[in-house]
Amino acid sequence: MESCSNKTLDKIVKDNLNLEQLKEFNRIYYGREDHCKIKLKQTSLTASEKYNLEVAAYTFPALNEEVRKPRVVKLGLVQHSIVLSTSESILDQKKSIFNKVENIINVAASEGVQILCLQETWLMPFFLCTGEKDRWSEFAESAENGASTKLLKQLAKKHSMVIISPILEKDNNGVWWNTAVVIDEKGNYMGKHRKNHLPSVGSFSETAYYATGNTGHPVFDTKYGKIAINICYGRHHALNWLMFALNGAEIVFNPSATISEFGESFWGIEARTAAVANGYFTCSVNRVGTEEFEKKDGKKVSRRYYGSSYVTAPNGCRTPGLSKVKDGLLIAEVDLNLCRQVKDYWGFQMTARLEMYAREMNTLQ
Amino acid sequence: MESCSNKTLDKIVKDNLNLEQLKEFNRIYYGREDHCKIKLKQTSLTASEKYNLEVAAYTFPALNEEVRKPRVVKLGLVQHSIVLSTSESILDQKKSIFNKVENIINVAASEGVQILCLQETWLMPFFLCTGEKDRWSEFAESAENGASTKLLKQLAKKHSMVIISPILEKDNNGVWWNTAVVIDEKGNYMGKHRKNHLPSVGSFSETAYYATGNTGHPVFDTKYGKIAINICYGRHHALNWLMFALNGAEIVFNPSATISEFGESFWGIEARTAAVANGYFTCSVNRVGTEEFEKKDGKKVSRRYYGSSYVTAPNGCRTPGLSKVKDGLLIAEVDLNLCRQVKDYWGFQMTARLEMYAREMNTLQ
Repeated sequence: MESCSNKTLDKIVKDNLNLEQLKEFNRIYYGREDHCKIKLKQTSLTASEKYNLEVAAYTFPALNEEVRKPRVVKLGLVQHSIVLSTSESILDQKKSIFNKVENIINVAASEGVQILCLQETWLMPFFLCTGEKDRWSEFAESAENGASTKLLKQLAKKHSMVIISPILEKDNNGVWWNTAVVIDEKGNYMGKHRKNHLPSVGSFSETAYYATGNTGHPVFDTKYGKIAINICYGRHHALNWLMFALNGAEIVFNPSATISEFGESFWGIEARTAAVANGYFTCSVNRVGTEEFEKKDGKKVSRRYYGSSYVTAPNGCRTPGLSKVKDGLLIAEVDLNLCRQVKDYWGFQMTARLEMYAREMNTLQ
Repeated sequence: MESCSNKTLDKIVKDNLNLEQLKEFNRIYYGREDHCKIKLKQTSLTASEKYNLEVAAYTFPALNEEVRKPRVVKLGLVQHSIVLSTSESILDQKKSIFNKVENIINVAASEGVQILCLQETWLMPFFLCTGEKDRWSEFAESAENGASTKLLKQLAKKHSMVIISPILEKDNNGVWWNTAVVIDEKGNYMGKHRKNHLPSVGSFSETAYYATGNTGHPVFDTKYGKIAINICYGRHHALNWLMFALNGAEIVFNPSATISEFGESFWGIEARTAAVANGYFTCSVNRVGTEEFEKKDGKKVSRRYYGSSYVTAPNGCRTPGLSKVKDGLLIAEVDLNLCRQVKDYWGFQMTARLEMYAREMNTLQ
């Protein structure tokens, strides 16, 4: 029997409640009684078997309007484990991950995904837990011209897909950043966003590795929608979420690399609260799998990421999470018209009193 | 068999999962495997029977520190239905509610509650759903000298209890406000806070009744802890939560009157997200029971409030909700030292970059 701790909450509950109870659970926990699943293509099911990849797809419809046409977009979220041991050569490690992710992107393309987001620093093991820096330096890449950007430009063009690629960036000046690169559907480099808030929690600290983001809160006006990226720990900061909204975002991605001890119990609520508060879709992507490192002194460090990637609509409805242990592709077909419909209904933006808060914040010591 | 829609999620799940599954559910949904219940006194159990009142108590401990002593405080949250028909005389309606609430406060006092919060506009039916104003005018009171303030001053003094009394205020100038009055443990009027954000959702609007709050974000430095009040719809506004934190709040109460259609599925997550983000306790109090009104044109309006009051600690752990249909008293014994301990651990405050946000917000159009 599968251990409880490997199962998502959705699975635990689904297996034990009757239909009426499950509807009530879903109404509260997921915001809607039915998950509105979309049927997958046979080729996706085959690929799912072949790659041991969970593939799931859900839809978030909006009301029909008279003046505006529906703006239906397919989003894809990818969570994946590393492939080789962290003691292998850096080039081999990268190559193996590139291969895996390329396969997953091909599945996403065949399902019609138009905007795809990978997990935080997707092309490497998340070695920051070692506290060591020099040995891992070569995982860092140029945002504009690195190997991962080159690969994804090709795939983006081939599939007419916007791709968000969160990497470890090393700039021309030798400074490291935690950066999300955005590539448009023609395969052009569109821009980048650097992580705004860096964690130092317990013995884990990112501030020794890279600088705090200096790119503000850019929103990328892609062919398919206005998108922004709130990287990992930034999800704990309500103002980070807010500024992306004020700059026009309709979808905010939250690529992450987070483990159970660091707040698994609020993984499901922070991005959901942000979606409701700001009237946009949020896409929470977390790394999956166990990563082991041997430090210079021979000591071993191990980290287990819990996946559970999910999407929330601006009305607070969310998908179930992807697996806690398997690679996964989560597809959400969303009508972006829902953003304005929800804003009109709730009035959170109309009642926000931002001038008052700007004034109050200016008086802070 | 009790209908599912009258049961809290906690109850539905508890009845159907085995122990291992329940622990995992609790770990994610409530932030801790065990609810840390406190045993109630026999007199409370008797009162619970007599008044058909749910009484539940939980504890939120903190780590021992060397320099600071524990600062353990007992909080009480009261949810209650109205007593008489809304067609009865206003004085009789008020009196019947006063009696009910006095009984509940006495139970709270016997359990040692030191800070108690009542629900939004607790001394009246929430008549705003009628859209009519004049007939209900006399439910409004002076914050400083109204009947409810006079009653609660006596009770506060008698029980050495700080009481938060959310009322409909009519000031000397004839302006209505949605106001929370704070009375200290000696029975003195301590101050008031007026609701900062007023909803206009669907056909329901509060802006025709009273003015938007002009009291900013006061924190009341009571004998037992630093408290603030975020009234009802203000819970949707992250900046409202934030300002109370920046002004020093250790506990923020959210007295509410909210129905299922207005976001029951995020009732459990917004205040919880705020507790985590801001490093304080949040206390969510919702009205309970069905209220029926006959409008001037003879049409009937009915509203059903779903209770589900709960407390969240700054580490994200929360209590189960009170009943969705019954009067209730929720007691939380909290160690306020947990606030700083959690802030030290997560570093959300250290990494907040408030100057950047103040600057960005000043450039908004």
